[in-house]
Amino acid sequence: MEERVMKDRVMAEPLPRRLQELPRPCARLCLRVRRFIHSLLPEASLSGSVLVAFSGGADSTALAVILHCLGMSPQLAHLDHGLRAESRAEALHAASFAQRLNAPFLTERIVVADLARQENLGLEAAGRLARYRFLERARRETGADWIATGHQLDDLCEDQLMRLIRGTGWPGLGGMPALDGKRRLLRPLLATRRSEIETFLAALGLDRIEDPSNSDARFTRNRIRHELLPIIRRENPAHADAGLDLWRLARLDESYWNGIIEPALAAIRPELLPAEACERPRDALPALHLPRHAFAHLPAAARLRVYMALIRNGAELRGKGQARAETLFRLDECCMNGQGVKYFQLPGQLSLIVCAEGVYLPLEREIIP
Amino acid sequence: MEERVMKDRVMAEPLPRRLQELPRPCARLCLRVRRFIHSLLPEASLSGSVLVAFSGGADSTALAVILHCLGMSPQLAHLDHGLRAESRAEALHAASFAQRLNAPFLTERIVVADLARQENLGLEAAGRLARYRFLERARRETGADWIATGHQLDDLCEDQLMRLIRGTGWPGLGGMPALDGKRRLLRPLLATRRSEIETFLAALGLDRIEDPSNSDARFTRNRIRHELLPIIRRENPAHADAGLDLWRLARLDESYWNGIIEPALAAIRPELLPAEACERPRDALPALHLPRHAFAHLPAAARLRVYMALIRNGAELRGKGQARAETLFRLDECCMNGQGVKYFQLPGQLSLIVCAEGVYLPLEREIIP
Repeated sequence: MEERVMKDRVMAEPLPRRLQELPRPCARLCLRVRRFIHSLLPEASLSGSVLVAFSGGADSTALAVILHCLGMSPQLAHLDHGLRAESRAEALHAASFAQRLNAPFLTERIVVADLARQENLGLEAAGRLARYRFLERARRETGADWIATGHQLDDLCEDQLMRLIRGTGWPGLGGMPALDGKRRLLRPLLATRRSEIETFLAALGLDRIEDPSNSDARFTRNRIRHELLPIIRRENPAHADAGLDLWRLARLDESYWNGIIEPALAAIRPELLPAEACERPRDALPALHLPRHAFAHLPAAARLRVYMALIRNGAELRGKGQARAETLFRLDECCMNGQGVKYFQLPGQLSLIVCAEGVYLPLEREIIP
Repeated sequence: MEERVMKDRVMAEPLPRRLQELPRPCARLCLRVRRFIHSLLPEASLSGSVLVAFSGGADSTALAVILHCLGMSPQLAHLDHGLRAESRAEALHAASFAQRLNAPFLTERIVVADLARQENLGLEAAGRLARYRFLERARRETGADWIATGHQLDDLCEDQLMRLIRGTGWPGLGGMPALDGKRRLLRPLLATRRSEIETFLAALGLDRIEDPSNSDARFTRNRIRHELLPIIRRENPAHADAGLDLWRLARLDESYWNGIIEPALAAIRPELLPAEACERPRDALPALHLPRHAFAHLPAAARLRVYMALIRNGAELRGKGQARAETLFRLDECCMNGQGVKYFQLPGQLSLIVCAEGVYLPLEREIIP
């Protein structure tokens, strides 16, 4: 690796900086990415700066060059995750690439295996946590408006499959968003095939880091990528188009349902549990309260999405927590037809209480009798 | 096979006729199936008779016995599809089983391979066509209200995967309905696992026909079943629950969207193409007309579903035809922002014309310039 970094330095030709310097097919890809970004964001919102989550792999390398050629002056942020012996050398490669791009560069080292132990997480989850924590710190430090990640269409198809396997509902099943305003995330390559990225890199003679963990079958995503996806693409060679279609439909439905349930979500308040909802007299406990009047008039398809959002709010405040659709159906049955007080225990540590005033989600564990 | 049919006759013990005669777990399964049927249909609608699509395989054998024990007096209809040497013997087995159940029995022989050639279809599709044509004839002949098929939860999960692979949107992705009023189809076992059916048959010592074509890798469904599903179930052993959840969410959304788009669909009329929509002067041609006022005020998520339903109507009148979501998005863009007349060619033989009056779907091919 050290040798390769040296080579990088020796060969360090300047990278293309403008669309006009690119071969025609590469320029076309850049323009397609720009159109995609503009379909997500009005042009003005991108006047601010973008921080690229830069691993040095194929996707983020292409992303950095594309944004650069589109005149968006990206900064690069590289997390040295300390998972492999090569990770320091990779950080050097990343730094040298940033130099060739004349882009500001941030890096940080964290031993993900330690974090996994501390937080009691799998390596895959700990790596993700470390990455997003670092990126958010880096974004604040640099004052960037957006964190851009290299996720592309093949990643999206894998994500859809993983969601199908886990049992995600709709529109979640459509896969990761290209724009996440809350986390300030942007995924400009989400409509671009991996193969197009490879072609782009090859045409520009760009080097990239091969991450050997991409073939590690301990990671769910890799098993999906190497076992499941090839079968699906044998059955339908145009499956990536189908995945993109599904994603677009999901985004459309998501924005529709968000509009419908927004007033109900706005009515959720932190409140103390009413005496009625406690089986034994006890100190009043904090909870999220979704008042009945905020959702009872909605159609069932909307009510279920309101419950889901309440549970997601609770999960964010309390750590883990989720619900199967089957639970949501029973909860709804109870909300609309039930009498008296009913308790629901959800996977994770969450619970729900249905009573005359609506639904409560206790913010402390010991409320369930 | 002849030998086996003889054995059936010799052993022909009467089958259980009432819930009370069943072992407790079998009776519980029957009651669960009854609750499922009642969740689809008000009790009164089932006072009429039911025709079971009876192949003699595990699913339809269990279905016949379950409906019988629930007091629904099913009739059995068996299609001898002439695909295998054993198919005549299987028809005899089916007849003998009906006799043991004391159920009216209808059968018919058709050589599916001939039909496939005549209609230019694959064996899988020709088999399906032959089956549903026969069942509909049989239903009319017997005056039955519903055709009940043995599709169960594992079939449903396979169906969802096939739809994901094909690129089906939402709520279609949730899989086959349990109730199809138009085709008079009922799928009472759709929430029941294959393994539960096996246990049921074993507990009652019931024989069934093993269909060797179930392991024939020429059929898409079998490849899904034997290659894809095992990987998915290794990743999530509770995937069947997830599939059922997805199905329930899809049914809920389907009924929601049907309510929203119904008025728009009711406004679709067969009409002659206006001169405006023809590039050259020609005889007026018949088309389906979706008037602009019927959909333009709807949200985008609903408009796309209206176009989809229009295309489905057209496909029913003209044979094949479908549209990718991407086409629907472009069509919508054109409907809402476009000027002048635009033509869309769809896969299959369908086309659409967008003009000031709305959308036209020509019912003859040569309209597209």
